[in-house]
Amino acid sequence: MKITILGNNSALPAYGRYPTAQVIDIMDQLFLMDCGEGAQMRMQQFKVKSNRINHIFISHAHGDHYLGLVGFISSLSLLGREKELHLYCPKEIKEIVELQLPWDLGFAMIFHLLEEGKRETLLDEEKWQVKCFPVYHSVPTHGFIFIEKKRKRILIPNQLQQYEIPKYFYAKLCEGEDYIDKFGDIVKNDWVTQQGHPDKIYVFAADTRYAPEIIEDISGADLFYHETTYTAENSEKAKMRFHSTAGQAADIAKQGLVKKLIIGHFSSKYKNLQAFLDEAIPVFEHTELAMEGQTFEI
Amino acid sequence: MKITILGNNSALPAYGRYPTAQVIDIMDQLFLMDCGEGAQMRMQQFKVKSNRINHIFISHAHGDHYLGLVGFISSLSLLGREKELHLYCPKEIKEIVELQLPWDLGFAMIFHLLEEGKRETLLDEEKWQVKCFPVYHSVPTHGFIFIEKKRKRILIPNQLQQYEIPKYFYAKLCEGEDYIDKFGDIVKNDWVTQQGHPDKIYVFAADTRYAPEIIEDISGADLFYHETTYTAENSEKAKMRFHSTAGQAADIAKQGLVKKLIIGHFSSKYKNLQAFLDEAIPVFEHTELAMEGQTFEI
Repeated sequence: MKITILGNNSALPAYGRYPTAQVIDIMDQLFLMDCGEGAQMRMQQFKVKSNRINHIFISHAHGDHYLGLVGFISSLSLLGREKELHLYCPKEIKEIVELQLPWDLGFAMIFHLLEEGKRETLLDEEKWQVKCFPVYHSVPTHGFIFIEKKRKRILIPNQLQQYEIPKYFYAKLCEGEDYIDKFGDIVKNDWVTQQGHPDKIYVFAADTRYAPEIIEDISGADLFYHETTYTAENSEKAKMRFHSTAGQAADIAKQGLVKKLIIGHFSSKYKNLQAFLDEAIPVFEHTELAMEGQTFEI
Repeated sequence: MKITILGNNSALPAYGRYPTAQVIDIMDQLFLMDCGEGAQMRMQQFKVKSNRINHIFISHAHGDHYLGLVGFISSLSLLGREKELHLYCPKEIKEIVELQLPWDLGFAMIFHLLEEGKRETLLDEEKWQVKCFPVYHSVPTHGFIFIEKKRKRILIPNQLQQYEIPKYFYAKLCEGEDYIDKFGDIVKNDWVTQQGHPDKIYVFAADTRYAPEIIEDISGADLFYHETTYTAENSEKAKMRFHSTAGQAADIAKQGLVKKLIIGHFSSKYKNLQAFLDEAIPVFEHTELAMEGQTFEI
């Protein structure tokens, strides 16, 4: 599972930093998380195979999270895409996209509207799952949980021999099935297999005020993105605008027992970003800046 | 008068080239001509003083000419702008902007809707004038004429003495007024002044098929921008899509007796742009590529 940062700035682009957009790669299936202005240019720059994106998630209807969407969809159409494209977004985004792209694109756009305040499983495929949860911003906003499933159990060779399990059944054992032998006796799955690797989990918490309400949602994430529009000296501004400081993001990460925190959505006030790390790391050690062009691997 | 190229590519961004946007500077008054995605990032990159832009012109309602507009206007608002902003655009653009920016921006947006097929003087101030004219694309599209007025006449010192004109009247002479002396006799303006410098004229011909219909509109321009989406080998595609080849652009420039041609709106088919020059220059010698970041001075 790989997360590539396309944009890490807040609303006003600054110092070459672009607004929010990320690409999540789960076994070559790409997911686009937010699509700020210029996201498609960044994809080209960072050699993201944009036609592999089948699912786009828009956290909320603020321009710096969606203004690259119409251009990106147009480009997919110009590139001859035929495969359907799924958009998970607030209702405002559907209206905005449909107003600007009323013609036949050559592929179906399928909108899945996110309901304010709702926790939901949006996608549940064999190898991956995507869920959403509410975060607390000035407009209805969702965070997203991307899960690479690692459910397959691992065979225990000695036990397989002992219970004389035929090879053709090994795949089913990995899926968790019990085996019934020729005498009708049950060989319990966990006698011959052991637990596989745990799922890989990336949580994107979008734009939000300091919100302990989300701790359960982010709990145990391998990688956790939290916005840090400001540092503590602007904490009043953060509060007023439903944004967070670096210290607050780190505190949420710590409470959520995540493995690693990445921070972004930096205000244009900040040219140098070191202050964000200086504030976050004493609270939560495993913090990194979500720099554009950088790929985080789980 | 200075024209800075912010984007020179056609619909699909490619090779680091962004879609159409240009800034025209007439004595520190800035005009934005089209606003493709990423225009505001380019302005930052090329150090364009974006708050000096009071007038924005959108040639037509294709995404690669306007998708940067909502982001740019939002940024002006975030930067605390209070001065009114004038937008000259097709009606679709007004709807798109108003849907996405329904709140109080802190300044007034004044829309001036362009009528299909209409020639019009959009702005006529003391020092500059902007006019529009129809071009011939797949949707209603306008070209624009930017004029820096150099109307002031130049005084002829000997003649001033001979007709005994008082100094307080010199400024009025420069404006073209006649002088009436103490005996009530008229001193004709052209007895004591001579013609000043000619106006400076930039013509932006937007997206268009090969259109000799525009020759009168562009006639005598000091600098003339014409699209060249394709080279001659793709002339069928150009025709079908209401675009032009480099040879066609050069032919229009030649017929229009312009001083210099700049070409842009390159298709993503072309990595190297030399072929455009190779095709245009034999037809019209004074042709240059409109490269991003480049400023053309008149």
